[in-house]
Amino acid sequence: MKNYWIWFPGDFEIHEGMLQNFTREERGMRWPAYWYSDDCYKNVKFEHAYDLHTPTTFTVHTHQQGYITINDTKYRVNEPITLKPGHQDIVIYIFSADELPTVWIEGELIHSDPSWLADNYVIQRPVGYSDLFTKQTDNPAHIPYAHKEIAPVSFQSQNGGLLVDFGKEINASLKFKNLKKAITVCYGESQTEALDTKMCYYQQSGITEHTKIPKRAFRYLFIPDFTAPSVDVTADCIFLPMTNHSAFSSDNELVNKIWDASIRTFKLCSDLFYIDGIKRDRWIWGGDAYQDNFINQYSFFNEDVDKRTILALRGHDEIHQHINTIVDYSMLWIISIYNHYQMTTDKEFLQMIMPRMEQMMDYLLAQTNDLGFIYGRDGDWIFVDWSAMDKDGTVAAEQMFLLQSLKSIMTAKKVLGQPATKYQKLFESLKANTLRYFWDNEKGAFIDSYESGKRHVTRHANILAVLFDIVDEEKQQAILHNVLLNDQITQLTTPYFKFFEQDALCKLGQLSQVYQTIQDYWGAMIKLGATTIWEEYDPTVSGKEHYAMYGDPFGKSLCHAWGGSPVYLLGRYFMGLQPTAPGYATFTIHPHLSMFNELQCSLPVKNGAVHYHVHDGKIDLRTDHSGGTVITDSEKIELQPQQTVTIANN
Amino acid sequence: MKNYWIWFPGDFEIHEGMLQNFTREERGMRWPAYWYSDDCYKNVKFEHAYDLHTPTTFTVHTHQQGYITINDTKYRVNEPITLKPGHQDIVIYIFSADELPTVWIEGELIHSDPSWLADNYVIQRPVGYSDLFTKQTDNPAHIPYAHKEIAPVSFQSQNGGLLVDFGKEINASLKFKNLKKAITVCYGESQTEALDTKMCYYQQSGITEHTKIPKRAFRYLFIPDFTAPSVDVTADCIFLPMTNHSAFSSDNELVNKIWDASIRTFKLCSDLFYIDGIKRDRWIWGGDAYQDNFINQYSFFNEDVDKRTILALRGHDEIHQHINTIVDYSMLWIISIYNHYQMTTDKEFLQMIMPRMEQMMDYLLAQTNDLGFIYGRDGDWIFVDWSAMDKDGTVAAEQMFLLQSLKSIMTAKKVLGQPATKYQKLFESLKANTLRYFWDNEKGAFIDSYESGKRHVTRHANILAVLFDIVDEEKQQAILHNVLLNDQITQLTTPYFKFFEQDALCKLGQLSQVYQTIQDYWGAMIKLGATTIWEEYDPTVSGKEHYAMYGDPFGKSLCHAWGGSPVYLLGRYFMGLQPTAPGYATFTIHPHLSMFNELQCSLPVKNGAVHYHVHDGKIDLRTDHSGGTVITDSEKIELQPQQTVTIANN
Repeated sequence: MKNYWIWFPGDFEIHEGMLQNFTREERGMRWPAYWYSDDCYKNVKFEHAYDLHTPTTFTVHTHQQGYITINDTKYRVNEPITLKPGHQDIVIYIFSADELPTVWIEGELIHSDPSWLADNYVIQRPVGYSDLFTKQTDNPAHIPYAHKEIAPVSFQSQNGGLLVDFGKEINASLKFKNLKKAITVCYGESQTEALDTKMCYYQQSGITEHTKIPKRAFRYLFIPDFTAPSVDVTADCIFLPMTNHSAFSSDNELVNKIWDASIRTFKLCSDLFYIDGIKRDRWIWGGDAYQDNFINQYSFFNEDVDKRTILALRGHDEIHQHINTIVDYSMLWIISIYNHYQMTTDKEFLQMIMPRMEQMMDYLLAQTNDLGFIYGRDGDWIFVDWSAMDKDGTVAAEQMFLLQSLKSIMTAKKVLGQPATKYQKLFESLKANTLRYFWDNEKGAFIDSYESGKRHVTRHANILAVLFDIVDEEKQQAILHNVLLNDQITQLTTPYFKFFEQDALCKLGQLSQVYQTIQDYWGAMIKLGATTIWEEYDPTVSGKEHYAMYGDPFGKSLCHAWGGSPVYLLGRYFMGLQPTAPGYATFTIHPHLSMFNELQCSLPVKNGAVHYHVHDGKIDLRTDHSGGTVITDSEKIELQPQQTVTIANN
Repeated sequence: MKNYWIWFPGDFEIHEGMLQNFTREERGMRWPAYWYSDDCYKNVKFEHAYDLHTPTTFTVHTHQQGYITINDTKYRVNEPITLKPGHQDIVIYIFSADELPTVWIEGELIHSDPSWLADNYVIQRPVGYSDLFTKQTDNPAHIPYAHKEIAPVSFQSQNGGLLVDFGKEINASLKFKNLKKAITVCYGESQTEALDTKMCYYQQSGITEHTKIPKRAFRYLFIPDFTAPSVDVTADCIFLPMTNHSAFSSDNELVNKIWDASIRTFKLCSDLFYIDGIKRDRWIWGGDAYQDNFINQYSFFNEDVDKRTILALRGHDEIHQHINTIVDYSMLWIISIYNHYQMTTDKEFLQMIMPRMEQMMDYLLAQTNDLGFIYGRDGDWIFVDWSAMDKDGTVAAEQMFLLQSLKSIMTAKKVLGQPATKYQKLFESLKANTLRYFWDNEKGAFIDSYESGKRHVTRHANILAVLFDIVDEEKQQAILHNVLLNDQITQLTTPYFKFFEQDALCKLGQLSQVYQTIQDYWGAMIKLGATTIWEEYDPTVSGKEHYAMYGDPFGKSLCHAWGGSPVYLLGRYFMGLQPTAPGYATFTIHPHLSMFNELQCSLPVKNGAVHYHVHDGKIDLRTDHSGGTVITDSEKIELQPQQTVTIANN
């Protein structure tokens, strides 16, 4: 097996996740995520038994401290050890007060690979490892970030200072040269923010050529009291390299720009983990992460960022509170594991995460009532969305999340060959009760709460019922007409839930409406000069009001992960690509591309890609992967690797 | 209230305890404690509401990072904040990836004191604080260790090198001056160890004048390949200052030396925490800590080291395994809290520790059977002692520990005005069953196990039954004659349990035997030149064999905390001082000092001392504390503060 740096499984992600959630900065204040934070275990053993037939030499390398026992004899780390043939029980004891305990074992017969076990003196599990750390010279405490230097595209003297524009939103550390005096730098995602020397989010004074400046998100800089016409500055963009496996270029320039901005937004918000936005928060949120997984699947197809985020969100076995304190997010976390498996067919990860998945499900089931309905307890945040909703008693939307969670764990258990009957039964009875108590036949929709007596309908539960296949086709159509297409039902106000809504609308065939929304809502930001997608776009405001949110004039994140959803919507429904078996063992391509006269598009599948070429009223389809089936309105065509199938574009 | 640095309660001790358990060093290897290790919470809030009648200014100082909200408006740390009159809800958010999050709040009306609450985003409790950190210039990450430089008492050229003797065992960092070349230093608690350049525990090469050398325990140094007749070296003894409130000087020179060596041993092993020994382990062990509490009570009377050790041993709320993996030690931990309360009457600490005390009791009760007997599970270490013992099924000694644990928590709950009936009932039924199943009428003693059918008797359970008042006087006498004074019953081999045995013998009035044991067992080490008390003394071995233990030629610790027990035995039984109400509100003095013709002794009581002067067949007794009663064989005399009561010494 391949050589890796190894650690207690999940602990690299938990430790780095804590560090990530400690990076938020606002106007000279540091603002940690407001939830309980786990750190990695500090005292860990690594164990392996070998039956040697020949003598062998190996070295245990570590950046931390500890020692080794082999058949109960002690040895030192970082020194070669030679063993005779025979049975050898190797235990490596590593500790660190502040770093992740890790080892690299170098040797011909004995080396660190996934067959080792890690032990925190209470639980023993197969080690964690990552493709980021596959050389002895690596160090899991040092993330192998790449650097790319970018120069400004323009300088402009203004308000007695200098405004610097880098042309697009970046996440970078600044390097100044040839400064005559110490300067102050005000950052802005927008020009307005940079020029607001009082209220801009980031500002640093006393900067000289020697100042080490932290990585920050911005497009503009403003240097007050600076009269020179330019300044010698480069932005050192710092990021984790990740390959984009998608491409999109059509005859609709606006949609092309939306696609590109979505991709840029997603990548900027995805390094070690999915974070919400690169300027504000910079925290790992379960809601954003859930949606990012879908965008990832149709673009970078990076399995590692998915897994790292799942591990970091969850923390150690013991559950202290819901993920990000939000009950919904605990359930989205469970569902995301299933989604990840569907995308990747990664059984090893499923096996590794299963104990924590089960513990999370137990934690959720402990707060269900006799009908199986989940309710909120003191300190729980029943979020769903910021929208007004009747949250009296148990809430319909939460039951939808719980149903999909049960389905997810049930399926995952079956994949691992473990009994799932318990979850199956709970699923069935919860589904029956959800329909019985929350479905209103007269309204043809799910109501928020049955306990309040108000029988109020909002979009959320209905959207989720469609997405999670909780209702039959008849009820789906009822929901479409009575809720989704019904302007009497209060509109969603957050892009977070708009994602689910667009997804549901697409699923119910409302592609032209969604295509219009993409151009109107996302297009509006592009037209305002956005190079990345915002946290929210409000067509009713103008000017600097666009930058305000949460009562803060620059509180809105202008590069916000969930904004990248057009990539998913276009890929999943317009390109019509979806796996029909885990890891794309089989997949279907059912294009709806009549809005395009010209289009070149590539989308990833696991270990492969699908290529689209729209021209002359036709679509040429090609893949390098087996298992593909092209679906048109009239037929199903098997797509052989490297062959091109051409269908009509209608 | 007084100004303190504040933190999440228990977290200073948990973090420093982890660091302590990471300090073990052996022949170039670092050896962490082999149990699960908690670290402090990394993300913590501090909260306080004030109703201000006048404007006021304050500053939140921190060495970590974070921000403040006051009535939901954000403020910066380390900058003065001025508030107007009115209600002010202050929340301080502090985080650190590697340090304990702490704050010092400086202000006239608003400052950091024990009335603040700490919150890890899951639980909220009154803050932790310490008398070690009471100035803004303090930093809880820097322990205020004192330093005392000591010079060698002799140099001796030997084996081609230089042997350096510091005259007594010390715990110090070496500082060399005027070295002509880099040297190697071999340390030894004994001369033999220092001269053994291969097997000595500590050895460091390449030492120059600039080498920063860690604190290590030793009396001797050996510098191989060093021909000069001396070397310029000082030992920087590093320790936490602690006042010795006891004094002992008698006409028995050997006992004086035993007392002094015991005091030195105890102090060397007690800085932030009670550790087992200063050369080996350096870990915080529940068994040593339990016994150190008794020694402390009759010498330094330092409440803080007691509390710090209790907190560090326990860790956070969630229990992952027994303390040091040993079931007995979890029970001793509970009992030690009760002992600490009896010594100090510290209700605040009792209140603070109660949640963790209850959780520990629940953890123990979860492994009891229908009869209430505690049993070992997979991974549990049913230790009792290293002696051979019939451990088939449930074991008598463990039931004794559980009985005393139940009594301890029951009493503690009553002190706090909380219901204790549950524990009372469990205690009574366990006591009845223990007597019914483990007491053997024929043998007049407790047997180890009733399930094996062997009905084997060892000393342990019988000793504990006496110490914990589990048997009536008739059974006590049976135990004394059938077990304690019965040479047919296998002798104890560890000083750990010898402590309990001597305690029980004293309790049963066997003072002359114990006095002889003190002179024979402890005296033998003194006669061999010991300046501190060893982990164990074996009269059957000689020469360098004295230094061997656990199969290692220098494995024996020559400065081992539990060795200091003569201080307790002499104080508690010979001086006859004991509290009869918590915190010495009342106490008795019942001297048995006929073995001394001359004696000057002082012993601490809470906030005071008792002074003994034996001369001319009489004992003069004096105290500065109220509540004392002198007991003689014939009468009880109230001892008024500052008055001297003289009784006959017989």
